[in-house]
Amino acid sequence: MSGSQASTQTASAGLHPFDPLTPGEIQLAVKILEASFPGVPLRYKKIDVQEPAKKDVIPYIEAERLGKPLPPKPARVLQALFHRLDNGTFYKAMLNADTKSVIHVKELPKSIQGPVDVDEMIEIESLCLQHPAVLAEIEKLKLPPGVTVCNDPWIYGTDDPNENRRLFQCYMYIVEVDHPQNNHYSTPVKFSPVFDGITHELVRMDYLPAGVDHKTMGTQPWKPVKTVQYAHELLDEPLRTDLKPYIVQQPEGPSYGLDGNVVTWQKWRFRVGFNNREGLVLYNITYDGRNLFYRLALNEMTVPYGDPRRPFHRKQAFDVGDVGFGITANELSLGCDCLGHIKYFGGYRTDSKGNPVELKNVICLHEQDNGLQHKHTNYRSGLATVVRNRQLVVQMICTVANYEYIFAYIFDQAAGIELEVRATGILSTAPLDNENGETVPWGTNVAPGVVAAFHQHMFSFRIDPAIDGFKNTIYYEDSVPMPPGEDNPFGAGYVTEETVLKTSGTANTAVDRHRVFKIRNDSVINPITYKPVAYKLQTLPSQMLLMGENSFNFKRAKFASKPIWVTKYQDNELYAAGEFTNQSKSSDGVETWVQRNDPIENEDVVLWHTFGLTHNPRIEDFPVMPVERISVHLKPDGFFTKNPALDVPPSDQSFNKSTLHQEVDAASCCSASGAPSKAKLYKRIE
Amino acid sequence: MSGSQASTQTASAGLHPFDPLTPGEIQLAVKILEASFPGVPLRYKKIDVQEPAKKDVIPYIEAERLGKPLPPKPARVLQALFHRLDNGTFYKAMLNADTKSVIHVKELPKSIQGPVDVDEMIEIESLCLQHPAVLAEIEKLKLPPGVTVCNDPWIYGTDDPNENRRLFQCYMYIVEVDHPQNNHYSTPVKFSPVFDGITHELVRMDYLPAGVDHKTMGTQPWKPVKTVQYAHELLDEPLRTDLKPYIVQQPEGPSYGLDGNVVTWQKWRFRVGFNNREGLVLYNITYDGRNLFYRLALNEMTVPYGDPRRPFHRKQAFDVGDVGFGITANELSLGCDCLGHIKYFGGYRTDSKGNPVELKNVICLHEQDNGLQHKHTNYRSGLATVVRNRQLVVQMICTVANYEYIFAYIFDQAAGIELEVRATGILSTAPLDNENGETVPWGTNVAPGVVAAFHQHMFSFRIDPAIDGFKNTIYYEDSVPMPPGEDNPFGAGYVTEETVLKTSGTANTAVDRHRVFKIRNDSVINPITYKPVAYKLQTLPSQMLLMGENSFNFKRAKFASKPIWVTKYQDNELYAAGEFTNQSKSSDGVETWVQRNDPIENEDVVLWHTFGLTHNPRIEDFPVMPVERISVHLKPDGFFTKNPALDVPPSDQSFNKSTLHQEVDAASCCSASGAPSKAKLYKRIE
Repeated sequence: MSGSQASTQTASAGLHPFDPLTPGEIQLAVKILEASFPGVPLRYKKIDVQEPAKKDVIPYIEAERLGKPLPPKPARVLQALFHRLDNGTFYKAMLNADTKSVIHVKELPKSIQGPVDVDEMIEIESLCLQHPAVLAEIEKLKLPPGVTVCNDPWIYGTDDPNENRRLFQCYMYIVEVDHPQNNHYSTPVKFSPVFDGITHELVRMDYLPAGVDHKTMGTQPWKPVKTVQYAHELLDEPLRTDLKPYIVQQPEGPSYGLDGNVVTWQKWRFRVGFNNREGLVLYNITYDGRNLFYRLALNEMTVPYGDPRRPFHRKQAFDVGDVGFGITANELSLGCDCLGHIKYFGGYRTDSKGNPVELKNVICLHEQDNGLQHKHTNYRSGLATVVRNRQLVVQMICTVANYEYIFAYIFDQAAGIELEVRATGILSTAPLDNENGETVPWGTNVAPGVVAAFHQHMFSFRIDPAIDGFKNTIYYEDSVPMPPGEDNPFGAGYVTEETVLKTSGTANTAVDRHRVFKIRNDSVINPITYKPVAYKLQTLPSQMLLMGENSFNFKRAKFASKPIWVTKYQDNELYAAGEFTNQSKSSDGVETWVQRNDPIENEDVVLWHTFGLTHNPRIEDFPVMPVERISVHLKPDGFFTKNPALDVPPSDQSFNKSTLHQEVDAASCCSASGAPSKAKLYKRIE
Repeated sequence: MSGSQASTQTASAGLHPFDPLTPGEIQLAVKILEASFPGVPLRYKKIDVQEPAKKDVIPYIEAERLGKPLPPKPARVLQALFHRLDNGTFYKAMLNADTKSVIHVKELPKSIQGPVDVDEMIEIESLCLQHPAVLAEIEKLKLPPGVTVCNDPWIYGTDDPNENRRLFQCYMYIVEVDHPQNNHYSTPVKFSPVFDGITHELVRMDYLPAGVDHKTMGTQPWKPVKTVQYAHELLDEPLRTDLKPYIVQQPEGPSYGLDGNVVTWQKWRFRVGFNNREGLVLYNITYDGRNLFYRLALNEMTVPYGDPRRPFHRKQAFDVGDVGFGITANELSLGCDCLGHIKYFGGYRTDSKGNPVELKNVICLHEQDNGLQHKHTNYRSGLATVVRNRQLVVQMICTVANYEYIFAYIFDQAAGIELEVRATGILSTAPLDNENGETVPWGTNVAPGVVAAFHQHMFSFRIDPAIDGFKNTIYYEDSVPMPPGEDNPFGAGYVTEETVLKTSGTANTAVDRHRVFKIRNDSVINPITYKPVAYKLQTLPSQMLLMGENSFNFKRAKFASKPIWVTKYQDNELYAAGEFTNQSKSSDGVETWVQRNDPIENEDVVLWHTFGLTHNPRIEDFPVMPVERISVHLKPDGFFTKNPALDVPPSDQSFNKSTLHQEVDAASCCSASGAPSKAKLYKRIE
């Protein structure tokens, strides 16, 4: 006992306020909770660090930035979500890790469902496949040898305001048994049981509509069909043989520096954070010693599907709130997910018993070359100044059942940050009897008997700015023609119109006005532009949520109905759709907070950008989807007094060591039409 | 004479219809024209290959594609623009290079101005600096030692429907004399002479408004000001020393194949074309032997400025039509402009005397790695399929006086093509007396006494499709909610609405409807989707031209008033703003051609996409601009029966050879706050 005591004594000691959870802290939390519920069996859903209070953190990180003596650290608080196994009650606890004590334990209302955890997913999957009702349906399929049935348990969604059970809808698939990477999404089947996740009872056997209308029918014997596979070993066609190696060498090592979770690179300094819910979070981002952002996080995403039919109408994942990008983050492998010199960061989660589970290599850090950064050739002298665009990438890849998301923050040498999202993975499919050329207007036939429904991916990017300080103003600028008249005699003039967001609220993007959102510090005036220093957000103007305002899909994801939200900062307002999204009846997030009508000019503000993809699948997205890449940028706009990348060394051959293509012998490189090679033609003029 | 005869005999022999101009062809054209105008001194503006008639080319390239015997080649036609020096008349000639004969020589109307050529630019620049009126103004500046005056001759623009002189407006700058890369754009001066390019007469001395209104004043002594420099040798600050080399190695060489101007790579095959006007053009693009595009070109760009005041109201460059991206393309250098294994293509232009001038290394070809192409992890087995995103880049960089444009076609392994445009270079600046904090609403103060006016860059991308054949249909699909009701009982349903463009015309982009433009072949039905095979154009929805409809800026660039234009193919309809843009009174391009109301369903159609940047300069864009990157995509959408990149080999360490970051000794990597390193924390749980 004394050994364990010694280990928990140091669980949080020496940690930075932004450092992620340690395994010792998981053990500490479990120990405190077990002491609080003596003899009661507990099932742990989540143990993580509670975001520290900003007012307590700022003096600490400002002292760090300015090299001053450090004030006391904010309290290290852990949060835990857990069930009592004796009566099913669901709790949220706050624990002080420094004093090893309970701050409070709250019983949560019955209407609240916590997120799905890893152990639960496996439990439900296994429960489903063993249930007699499911086995009876499988029996009716009369499967040939070599195939079996598997299932993806789905978070249930919502269509009943009175439903308080914890439900899982299992979508069922045929899967071949000869390889662990067989693609079951190419062979969906037409029954779908619903289970109670707490009692493990079968709630209902749903039958899926598999025609062009809402009709369903009982389970019929399965007609074997050729599957469509993605794994290399399972392809019919041979692999390409003409792709030559492309190797990134960094003989002098990377340009980044590391100190715990602090990354320094090319005048940037920031902290890599990690939590179970959002996964990768960036904290305390400065450039050349100047504050830029307190915290950046992709904080929520919803994926509603456009198939109008029961039970598909409930397919609406909130992959952050319902599951968590932290716990679904891939263990990244050297040479697979990035090139060059790679640093990995890991994290921890708890299992249902309270044991720390290491999440190894879930974040990677590497440099990349992205073509030219700037170039100018003086046409008189012919002399060129060329600078390449080296970037630093902090990346996380999450697998949420069928889909994959690749998130990357890309830092550049001109003080810009790009948040890049790549969607890949496998489409969520449904059966469609389409032997006679049937199609549905809400989906794409991606394989014989398989439709992939239209859907949207709506992301929320939470930007907690600190542009040269923690009080900022959000405004937008539109480009508008000057009215014709004395000041604009030729009709060529155009100017910008500025709109300051004075109270918490929303705004729209506007491509036809070239609307640009900016974050400025009214107290710091740029000595050249004579305007307050600012950063701009280059939004991704996107179609907002397509689901009707009266639908649960809309009510649960109001953040996805407007591209821009601005709130006054308050602790614990981190997630756009609210804290608990699983089976939520309505969201409780930004749409609530903006209603405070807080004054937000020159205040501690938070800017939330909703952007996304309306994804009407292409057949080319199946059986695994080539990345669809979208991004938003944060860029200085009046923050510096000139291009901040001027001092990046020139791009030249002594540094870059490229290879000149050697023309092969002219005789052997004649085209089919007999055209002589360029080299030959050139010779004539010499 | 017989030696020269022998050389011209083979000038075009053996060339492919899409091969660019050879120096022998320039010599041939000059020879034919000199014979047609005996004893008349001629000044050559442009000699280039005339685009071959499509109906004559198709049988030839189809025979190539299908490996059939080749039919006769289309006639090789050269076009020439030239002036008679004895009377100034401007001509366009068509010459048959095969028969070495004139097809026709046409005298062009006086209202038409040809593009600026390289020799002319140098002439005007030099003429300006020697003119007594200019020297008198320079005298008034009372310049200190160490500085001199230089000028950028600008194409004049238009504000008078009766102006038929060939005019140049010279914008004047102070420049320091101690280095060939001194940045004169940081020291603009306030007088601006206008010259007649033919007579070389001074037409007018303009004085620039340099306050916040339209007032001008005579030239005053120059007040010395510290310049803002971009060249590395001229910077005050030291260069960064912490950027480590990043070297791309391709030990087995590139994955591309070359055969003259034919490029093959990863199932792609296309021809690299080059002409003086557009520079890089791609022809006859096929994938896996299937036709995709007959021709792709960035065919025009206009850059109108938003400063409403005379003479700035005329600042409106058409960098393709007024000058030419071919003749302004940079000679690219190994290790500067790209990494890896580089192949360069060159071209030729004529000088004013009819001599061929080699344009060396103006196009480069290389591969790049762009992160992941697709990934899926089976969460049950933990097994991942990971494929990297190798790309092939065909790139050209153009310097048009102050600005640089980087154009790249990026081919990927999933049958997609991205047209990427990067804007860099130096802002066009004007003087602004702003010692007392003055600002103007149409520009940004970028240095003391210097304003950079707001402006737009409007590009036209001409897509001549051949989706599985040369008759295609253009349509767009919008994503729209299903109305509530029996078919959509829960309000979650959404579908796509299709609109076919049946006659030549225009269309708008629509972010709020997620509008996607597609090109399909109605004669080829996809066996899985049951719909015609198609490619989609992912547009870049952009603000259209801001200048008023009654302005010359608008009338000259109607292509920039709508994002989408569709015409029925006709030979010689290549440039969105018409053939002659320099000092044009109005455009004569797509806006004319669409008015034919041609039926375009299942026809030989051309899709023109106007996109661009409203560029309200940031101070960070000065003195040289970090790239602003925009792009559009062409992607298969129902063209294949599954992801075409499935057969790309897996991404693994044996192929990619990445480097794992080695943690330094834990003792030395403690943070300022004394936090132990992650490695140390991890140890505790073992």
